[in-house]
Amino acid sequence: MSEIRQDLTTNEWVIFASERAKRPHDFAKQAKEMPPDFSENCPFCPGNEDRTPPEVLAYRSGGKANDSSWWVRVIPNKFAALNPSGTIERKIEDGFFRKMDGVGHHEVLIESPRHSLYIPYMEDHQVEEIILALRERYRILRQDPTVRVIVIFKNHGSAAGTSLEHPHCQIVATPIVPQSLRRRLAVATRYYDDNGGCIYCDMMEMERKNGVRVIEDTDEFIVLHPFASRSPFETWILPTRHSASFARIEIEEAKALGKVLRRTLAGIFNILGNPDFNLVIHTAPIKDEEEDYFHWYMRLIPRVTTQAGFEIGSGIFINTALPEETAASIREAEGLAPA
Amino acid sequence: MSEIRQDLTTNEWVIFASERAKRPHDFAKQAKEMPPDFSENCPFCPGNEDRTPPEVLAYRSGGKANDSSWWVRVIPNKFAALNPSGTIERKIEDGFFRKMDGVGHHEVLIESPRHSLYIPYMEDHQVEEIILALRERYRILRQDPTVRVIVIFKNHGSAAGTSLEHPHCQIVATPIVPQSLRRRLAVATRYYDDNGGCIYCDMMEMERKNGVRVIEDTDEFIVLHPFASRSPFETWILPTRHSASFARIEIEEAKALGKVLRRTLAGIFNILGNPDFNLVIHTAPIKDEEEDYFHWYMRLIPRVTTQAGFEIGSGIFINTALPEETAASIREAEGLAPA
Repeated sequence: MSEIRQDLTTNEWVIFASERAKRPHDFAKQAKEMPPDFSENCPFCPGNEDRTPPEVLAYRSGGKANDSSWWVRVIPNKFAALNPSGTIERKIEDGFFRKMDGVGHHEVLIESPRHSLYIPYMEDHQVEEIILALRERYRILRQDPTVRVIVIFKNHGSAAGTSLEHPHCQIVATPIVPQSLRRRLAVATRYYDDNGGCIYCDMMEMERKNGVRVIEDTDEFIVLHPFASRSPFETWILPTRHSASFARIEIEEAKALGKVLRRTLAGIFNILGNPDFNLVIHTAPIKDEEEDYFHWYMRLIPRVTTQAGFEIGSGIFINTALPEETAASIREAEGLAPA
Repeated sequence: MSEIRQDLTTNEWVIFASERAKRPHDFAKQAKEMPPDFSENCPFCPGNEDRTPPEVLAYRSGGKANDSSWWVRVIPNKFAALNPSGTIERKIEDGFFRKMDGVGHHEVLIESPRHSLYIPYMEDHQVEEIILALRERYRILRQDPTVRVIVIFKNHGSAAGTSLEHPHCQIVATPIVPQSLRRRLAVATRYYDDNGGCIYCDMMEMERKNGVRVIEDTDEFIVLHPFASRSPFETWILPTRHSASFARIEIEEAKALGKVLRRTLAGIFNILGNPDFNLVIHTAPIKDEEEDYFHWYMRLIPRVTTQAGFEIGSGIFINTALPEETAASIREAEGLAPA
């Protein structure tokens, strides 16, 4: 029989469709051919720095700004969705519709000079440096008084919405708090008021006790496939220390996250064969970074299924694989002990 | 400069990214090759009725149940997401997580015996009969006391989430009210209390006055590209008569909708060349079918863009085409007078 589960952090429902159930390995695809290490036409490859806007941050030893001696580089997005001019004033059109300027920031973090160096193949310290660079840019962008929320994400592969092969993340600083975040905050606040604690902390505790959906449980981070995962192999990486904002990650935690993120992606690549995926960081609005009730986390969504009319019409997702089974398949492939 | 617009029916924000702006015709693709009129292996083609569960409704003259003399046929989905056994009782797992049985109904409406007969190429009366058949199944399914909401939708093409080429719609009767519908109802209720009228009726009135986003304005339906469309060529078809539920559509309205829907899809095919698309009906929960504050409508989403990490992480969509421009391009191609 199918089962409907509720995501307690959003109150959204997910249908687990037993008639359509697939085994975890059914989602594996022929791994795509690896790209070359260098691509002459790629604006993110070293030597092509003049094809991007000037950098706003780079990690290099010696060398000078915008030369090719960097190993992590952050630039404004040439095709920015938001730009740092305008105001946050709401305007009413025709006495009815509401709009505002597209004010904000949109940056690209180039993860490595090597065109083909996906995170699973990096050294741990390289992933750590990506995380520290994201933190650095977050901390700069949050000072702009028009910014309300900073959204950090990564698109890998065309089904995940990118046309650029060269490994990169994106940072968008928005002048509004998105409704979906407002709802997460409202649900978490209500839980906090009712129970006196953070819903994410309590959820981690339950998952740890139960164990079946946990991939890894380290001192700093827990990796799990959530109870009401929206799609097969959806993975959450949550800091074990309560913290509402990614901005407050400490150096030692960034180091640990580098390791855990690399291993998590390696596990997914191992089973699914370099799948297209999105990675997003859910973090509090800037004014709520110190709240007791919210908890930041990373969410990984391999794009192995397509959102169809039912999802668009209802907001209910249909998942064809149980998180208990996908988690077990990852643990098995990684030789991790069952929790 | 980019602009951020609010969808007043959901309070969601959409970024219109001027740096990434495309002209309406840039979304056109080479039209896909038309499928054959009959496909031996297709379970929906006539003669293959025994490969599907027995029909629950069919329009035929003479003949008998499950023979091949039908012209519209409704069957239970062989790979149903929900099934009519179980209860709506919520269950708590591990004293924390919430779930329930996947109780409900999932049906498929086969639009025509002809494997290749897409709606734009049908006769108006054929589309009308599809709509009446959907209404008939809605009215039956709503009698099941476990059903709360009926979601009607159509997936066309693989990017829209279907693997079956033969033209069909789907009907899912769910035992829960989805959160996304709860939010639409909450926003509409608040508007009703503040303004004493239906937000959708008022929006239609504004759109009619302004004219730039309107494709067609008939006695029974208005067709428009909404002010805060999430993706290029998103189209809403709204009944001009206030009604919260699709279930309450009258015969004359179904006739008019048949015409308008066929023309709308023909216009989209004309410009975009048989694009993959989703069609969904937003309608009130069964217990709210007579409410003054909600208004049912059809929403058409051509799948010309991909949802990426930013949309997943923030719920904010980035649209690369203004509805004013896409609406103008459709009117121009159709030879419709500018509103």
